[in-house]
Amino acid sequence: MTIDPKNFRDLDPGERVLMGPGPSNVSPRVLSALGAPCIGHLDPYFLSIMDETQALLRALFQTENQLTIPVSGTGSAGMETCFVNLVQPGDKVVIGVNGVFGTRMSDVASRLGAEVTRVEAEWGRAVDPGDIRQAALQEKPKIIALVHAETSTGVRQPIGGLRDIADECGALLLLDTVTSLGGIEVAVDKWGIDAVYSGTQKCLSCPPGLSPISLSARAMEVLKKRKTKVPNWYLDMSLVADYWGSSRKYHHTAPVNMIYALREALRLIVEEGMAARFERHLTNHQALVAGLEAMGLSMLVKPEERLPMLNAVVVPDGVDELKVRQRLLAEYGIEIGGGLGDLSGKIWRVGLMGFSCSRRNVTLFLSALERVLWA
Amino acid sequence: MTIDPKNFRDLDPGERVLMGPGPSNVSPRVLSALGAPCIGHLDPYFLSIMDETQALLRALFQTENQLTIPVSGTGSAGMETCFVNLVQPGDKVVIGVNGVFGTRMSDVASRLGAEVTRVEAEWGRAVDPGDIRQAALQEKPKIIALVHAETSTGVRQPIGGLRDIADECGALLLLDTVTSLGGIEVAVDKWGIDAVYSGTQKCLSCPPGLSPISLSARAMEVLKKRKTKVPNWYLDMSLVADYWGSSRKYHHTAPVNMIYALREALRLIVEEGMAARFERHLTNHQALVAGLEAMGLSMLVKPEERLPMLNAVVVPDGVDELKVRQRLLAEYGIEIGGGLGDLSGKIWRVGLMGFSCSRRNVTLFLSALERVLWA
Repeated sequence: MTIDPKNFRDLDPGERVLMGPGPSNVSPRVLSALGAPCIGHLDPYFLSIMDETQALLRALFQTENQLTIPVSGTGSAGMETCFVNLVQPGDKVVIGVNGVFGTRMSDVASRLGAEVTRVEAEWGRAVDPGDIRQAALQEKPKIIALVHAETSTGVRQPIGGLRDIADECGALLLLDTVTSLGGIEVAVDKWGIDAVYSGTQKCLSCPPGLSPISLSARAMEVLKKRKTKVPNWYLDMSLVADYWGSSRKYHHTAPVNMIYALREALRLIVEEGMAARFERHLTNHQALVAGLEAMGLSMLVKPEERLPMLNAVVVPDGVDELKVRQRLLAEYGIEIGGGLGDLSGKIWRVGLMGFSCSRRNVTLFLSALERVLWA
Repeated sequence: MTIDPKNFRDLDPGERVLMGPGPSNVSPRVLSALGAPCIGHLDPYFLSIMDETQALLRALFQTENQLTIPVSGTGSAGMETCFVNLVQPGDKVVIGVNGVFGTRMSDVASRLGAEVTRVEAEWGRAVDPGDIRQAALQEKPKIIALVHAETSTGVRQPIGGLRDIADECGALLLLDTVTSLGGIEVAVDKWGIDAVYSGTQKCLSCPPGLSPISLSARAMEVLKKRKTKVPNWYLDMSLVADYWGSSRKYHHTAPVNMIYALREALRLIVEEGMAARFERHLTNHQALVAGLEAMGLSMLVKPEERLPMLNAVVVPDGVDELKVRQRLLAEYGIEIGGGLGDLSGKIWRVGLMGFSCSRRNVTLFLSALERVLWA
């Protein structure tokens, strides 16, 4: 149990070009905010930072929802939060499953006693809204849940018409926007989303550790009418809402420095302008795809279902995909991701998220990949 | 929904002397590590940082437990983790309750379907081990849970003999060390603790956001033998153990920069040496109490049950305690805490935690308090 301090060297992570499925590169301004002096979580100055963070998150989610806050955990804690507050044992939930994160939602909801109906689609394709409607009309679920941006495949789920389907059966609409928020439009109020969560380490370009979420008035009503307490004290939004609201009732200690960083990342987004930011993601995505196709590589997802910030590239026959990733990291300091589950070994996942999404990185990556593949 | 970036000014938290119940002041070395470039959570360098963090945490907890990791949430998430992994509906749990955090444990366990027996003591007193034993022998609980350092009152719970009581009825022993870890001894293996959690923002002097926990082999066995899945995917330690273990199986994305910071905070502890660190906390506590008593103030807790890092000071009759705290903050930049629950308005809570625990701060605080109270 004795431990020698000399075995633990000074931190020196170097610097990477983060073009995987997240985290993305973090702006120096955000790192600087992250490293600012920690103050009390009930300090008047910090309370103003909490208020501003909520206002900025509402703008980003395009919502007036009162409960719009960063949950004190990573994106998966946001998923857990949305389900644990809204599901009671025996509730029916319809979930679109076309990758790792739809699968994870099914697991999360099942553990809470939900009766889950999975509406499946091939990994690499969007879930068919017609299939969702059919399952919803048959099951009359309490919740319909979908993944807006499936990080495991690079598929963009169409949202149009989902609110009508939910209204037909009186369901809440739940959306995973971990990878989409900050890179493509997420219009919570316009789309009629009742529960939405995201993560900080993708297109917000803040380190991992917080999960922005928003719950509609309708979702808060469902939470209020629960017959049993939320079986998770830490993520009980009826308590957390009082902490983030005007009563400031102590719940847990907010992650002060991570909230500094998130606020700075959101400030950068507002300064750039959301339309300009979405355009930047789209343009760099198009340049990346053009470059990859010019090299003879092909994309897993068909053009109309592609996410700009997560590009699934088919590994050519005979290529050792892991070795390519290892060489990119070792020789160029570039991180990209491999495939998960059934797609393991079959695709690369190339992220263009937030601060990482630049013309410079697209050019560097294409050149480096070309050298690693063919040189 | 339009938002003007000019309404959000540059971050400027200033600098406080944090002598409340946490967070404590963070060393510049830890802030610098926190603001280091973010890299991928599966990057080989980051994996080595995860391994080192676990080794350092094992040293701090004085344990050989394999599962010794920082949970990706604050101290309360650590509490949630210990209960949600070990409790199944109908399980009996005996909890010592003498403040806010014992009360919170009861709430957490009840929400998970535990049958909770509360062994109460007056707020400001330790729980009587004899009362614990009596309840344990009567209930034959699955878990006996206590708060080592009750942050709401400044009481230190004696641990001696608890393992024997647990063995008499075959129970697991669960301990809250949020405020004790890093300031007084926490000897997990010697004391026979099966589940322990802490927080980063107290005596570790790292910003809030992570919860170090450790589970004994006996606790892991109980987890393995569950008949139902842990009803909390995010905090399911059977999954998280695979992510932090040698298989590196992806679970959630670790909060990379917070782990940099925790590792640096732990490195500082190892460099100082644990015995020296505990001695520093004790000495400064004694100086603080001597100074307070010389001013005619008295402590809530009797000497043999006092925590060095959390000092509950009785507010003198006729003093507006909130005004004193507000003046200390506004005029001196010193944060101390007020009382919670029944002790609201009756005590101040003066923290001497980690980096905040210095002779300089004791002297500054005593002088400032004297001026605010009597000048």
